Amino acid sequence: MSSVVAAGSFVCPPAFIALAQRLADAAGEVARKYFRTPIAIDTKPDNSPVTIADRESEAAMRAIIARDAPGHGIYGEEMGKADIDAEFVWVLDPIDGTKAFITGKPSFGQLIALMHKGTPILGVIEQPILHERWLGVAGQPTTLNGQPIKTRACGELDKAVLYATAPEMFKGAEVAAWENLKRRVGLVRYGADCYAYGLCASGFVDLVIESSMQPYDYCALVPVVEGAGGTVSDWYGERLGLGSGPSVAAAGDARMHAAALKVLSGV
Amino acid sequence: MSSVVAAGSFVCPPAFIALAQRLADAAGEVARKYFRTPIAIDTKPDNSPVTIADRESEAAMRAIIARDAPGHGIYGEEMGKADIDAEFVWVLDPIDGTKAFITGKPSFGQLIALMHKGTPILGVIEQPILHERWLGVAGQPTTLNGQPIKTRACGELDKAVLYATAPEMFKGAEVAAWENLKRRVGLVRYGADCYAYGLCASGFVDLVIESSMQPYDYCALVPVVEGAGGTVSDWYGERLGLGSGPSVAAAGDARMHAAALKVLSGV
Repeated sequence: MSSVVAAGSFVCPPAFIALAQRLADAAGEVARKYFRTPIAIDTKPDNSPVTIADRESEAAMRAIIARDAPGHGIYGEEMGKADIDAEFVWVLDPIDGTKAFITGKPSFGQLIALMHKGTPILGVIEQPILHERWLGVAGQPTTLNGQPIKTRACGELDKAVLYATAPEMFKGAEVAAWENLKRRVGLVRYGADCYAYGLCASGFVDLVIESSMQPYDYCALVPVVEGAGGTVSDWYGERLGLGSGPSVAAAGDARMHAAALKVLSGV
Repeated sequence: MSSVVAAGSFVCPPAFIALAQRLADAAGEVARKYFRTPIAIDTKPDNSPVTIADRESEAAMRAIIARDAPGHGIYGEEMGKADIDAEFVWVLDPIDGTKAFITGKPSFGQLIALMHKGTPILGVIEQPILHERWLGVAGQPTTLNGQPIKTRACGELDKAVLYATAPEMFKGAEVAAWENLKRRVGLVRYGADCYAYGLCASGFVDLVIESSMQPYDYCALVPVVEGAGGTVSDWYGERLGLGSGPSVAAAGDARMHAAALKVLSGV
């Protein structure tokens, strides 16, 4: 198992942080416009739902990037990859938790990550209905609506609050590993999508263990959780980047992260 | 299987509706005061968590009922039963979804029901962080923040959005019944507590199927869902009252309710 190391010493230019904020503003505006309105729900080849809110939100962000950072690459859930070999690449999930969104439940989020040479150096979790924005930047304290936040200390599994969006996200051998972990923790909750990682960064959740995740689902989460004092990797302790997944393990306390990975690996 | 019949012709006095609103105001104020603050979490004999927010919220409501409706009975989750043979009984869940509450997730709710001779004639689902209040009164259209709402038509299981708070709430033979139903519907989501019934009343969710429920968990849901055009019963089609439970089946469309009960009964 590799150890999880810090994101390096690259300093994210303030102009890119400001750009990320403008992307979140634009994405949030689109989500608020369509939330709880009668919009058509299409089904993608992977059988997941997509709406005009997903597409219009990603299009709005891509237009801003094209205008303000034309040399940057983009990897978006709905509209694919462009220049992803560029030094800087924006990874976008215009609505993470489309299934929650279409049921009128404001626990979905909008995810924006900036990758520098493959490493996530900035992440935003935007919840546009609750007007909550988690912002993580490598080397800086994570903030929620501008206020610095911290994960909480909790190293013992039997005291942990564990989140996963749904048990159906675990496949094959992951099912038994998940069941094993579930039996060891203090409390298991479901149904929060990326919002669970925000709650982890804010010190209310100790563990988020998920799978079936794509880069646009997890890249933004890394700087948010790490900048608040937490640890994020896949289930094998490898750092998350564009070629990682599908498993994700986030913890507020490094001891909790290690304990969870041990149980998940069956050691 | 008995058919689910309407709540009867009793007209809820406007003064009791106003009283319910005052109870929700008071409960919401307490919840907002403690949400995402470092409060102690105690464990009840049934192994579920309870906090000062639960207790203070229920105490605030009981004080108002004692002052404004001294002849009424009260059945509260945290402080028990008083005069529950009275003609009118208030059934209170000061925080439904304490597990969500203590993890900082605003999908919990506060439930207030008024029973008249054992039948729920008024129900409130209060979400104090989102400032959302569903109010159902027998014989009147259910409202969300004062605006009338309606369930949506959806009679086919394979198009249904189904919610349950967590799969762990199903016990014994319920597990197989739940798995059976889950395979038949279009989309399954978790983690919403009473909020799922509000979303059903508002026409975004077609089915909520739960178990391990107590009267204070479900009495308030009945007028909310029924007043929006939906149907609520236990899994056997019996109306819900103080002696019912632990299973609950709510649907926006009576055809959906019948289809779900058929699958759950294994017929």
